[in-house]
Amino acid sequence: MYDLIIIGAGPAGLSAALFAARYRLKTLVVSRDVGGLIADAWSVENYPGFKNISGHDLIKKLMEQVEALGVGIKTDDIHGILKKSSSFAVNGNKGYEAKAVILALGTKKRALGVEGEEKFLGKGVSYCAICDAPVFRNKVVGLIGGSNACCTSSLLLANYAKKVYVIYRRDALRGDPLLVERIESNRKIEIVNNANITRINGSRFVESVDLDTGKNLKIDGLFIEIGSDPQVVLAKQLGVGTDRNGYIAVDNGQCTNIAGVFAAGDTTTKSANLKQVVTAVAEGAVAATSAYNYLKKN
Amino acid sequence: MYDLIIIGAGPAGLSAALFAARYRLKTLVVSRDVGGLIADAWSVENYPGFKNISGHDLIKKLMEQVEALGVGIKTDDIHGILKKSSSFAVNGNKGYEAKAVILALGTKKRALGVEGEEKFLGKGVSYCAICDAPVFRNKVVGLIGGSNACCTSSLLLANYAKKVYVIYRRDALRGDPLLVERIESNRKIEIVNNANITRINGSRFVESVDLDTGKNLKIDGLFIEIGSDPQVVLAKQLGVGTDRNGYIAVDNGQCTNIAGVFAAGDTTTKSANLKQVVTAVAEGAVAATSAYNYLKKN
Repeated sequence: MYDLIIIGAGPAGLSAALFAARYRLKTLVVSRDVGGLIADAWSVENYPGFKNISGHDLIKKLMEQVEALGVGIKTDDIHGILKKSSSFAVNGNKGYEAKAVILALGTKKRALGVEGEEKFLGKGVSYCAICDAPVFRNKVVGLIGGSNACCTSSLLLANYAKKVYVIYRRDALRGDPLLVERIESNRKIEIVNNANITRINGSRFVESVDLDTGKNLKIDGLFIEIGSDPQVVLAKQLGVGTDRNGYIAVDNGQCTNIAGVFAAGDTTTKSANLKQVVTAVAEGAVAATSAYNYLKKN
Repeated sequence: MYDLIIIGAGPAGLSAALFAARYRLKTLVVSRDVGGLIADAWSVENYPGFKNISGHDLIKKLMEQVEALGVGIKTDDIHGILKKSSSFAVNGNKGYEAKAVILALGTKKRALGVEGEEKFLGKGVSYCAICDAPVFRNKVVGLIGGSNACCTSSLLLANYAKKVYVIYRRDALRGDPLLVERIESNRKIEIVNNANITRINGSRFVESVDLDTGKNLKIDGLFIEIGSDPQVVLAKQLGVGTDRNGYIAVDNGQCTNIAGVFAAGDTTTKSANLKQVVTAVAEGAVAATSAYNYLKKN
């Protein structure tokens, strides 16, 4: 029986584990994989304390910090949580039990939903620039999206590809102005605004995409970065409330509507929708503190 | 005319500056001194990404990160802010003007308010263990308080002094259990619970303190760490609302009740009272984001 099980091992979950360990709670972190979406980030420049660090290296530092305090991090795919009289049964390939839980499952990348997307997955279609950029050395690639993550990916892709089309449905990229300036001054990158992809074409590999502007772009690869959705399947099983966009509703202390259930990171309504490492770690720290206070009282 | 002036250069102010610079806002940080209370911290172990770093070194990293993006950090003692029709006049030894302001002034250490406190300041009485601990090598010192900061200070003092009394008004220290364990196993430290200091005695230097238990403790120095109060003089000038404890009331986006005025860090009601570096930097990031969105609209 643990005091606290933290589900998810991205920045929010690992920061929660750091604080829980300092509160001397018997804590387990359990997650399908370690690192969350940030682990795939090529370059993080806006986490205070590091001018520039890869997502992979930042997660490694967090894990080391947590493991040095003796908290175990288990790999398991949790598919169910059941509220019992004074504890929670957490079920994956194995079963676990704790007096309190923190949900820190983050978000999942969104699919485009067009013809060819599934067919060409791994054959030119990718959801992860950091993973697959080097494959496209001297090739022509497309990238769909307009967010910060997308802007960073386009700059990474331009380090390898000979040409990068950034395709975005609106009339201006919504990344940080600093990133947008860098993109606009990069001669390899061409921004295609006010356009949606309607179809991905090819025989064995991606060869082109059709746009709703009537254009056809010849590309060798397509990177899809059109946002993400909160991971709330487990939350819903517990009856945890969400806002109308599906994010877990939490108060100032990261408490959900269910006693003993806390949530932190990108999956919550907190931090005014600024889904960054800096906000995730703070939410994790606050959630662990609230869990500690809850356990002291109960 | 700046887009944004950030008043205060602790973790909250510097993180706000980092984000503001990335939003390409014309930003000034102005503060009486750089670093805030954390700059005096001997050892920070709970900021995600660093297993152990001094407050001084952490602040140095934040400053370098901000200055690399071209944001100026000015030393000035701001004594007034005046709301004009579409901007704010910020007055210190010099005058500044901006379209939006972020208040990140943190908290100020609380005085004990007993006889001898003022008289022996710098003659045995100190509010800063990291500053003055080495002075008390092989001496006997007292430390009053029971918080995390106080617990960390007692461990530091034990590295120098031959004996450390931790005097606390309640029956158990309220620091993280991890820190309390370390204190309890340190043979140089003696915890004096359920006691208040009523008077500090000495001729030229501190020689002893009287406790309300009737005891008199012979000590060569007294460190006072009994909490801190939010710095809200400037906020009150602007009509910014506070809670009943005097902390600046902010919403999920760090917005105050006054349009164009944002607040971040220990001085606010946010993060469920967990006043740590990790929460301060997140609040700074969110405040800068809200200021950016406000400036885009106005």
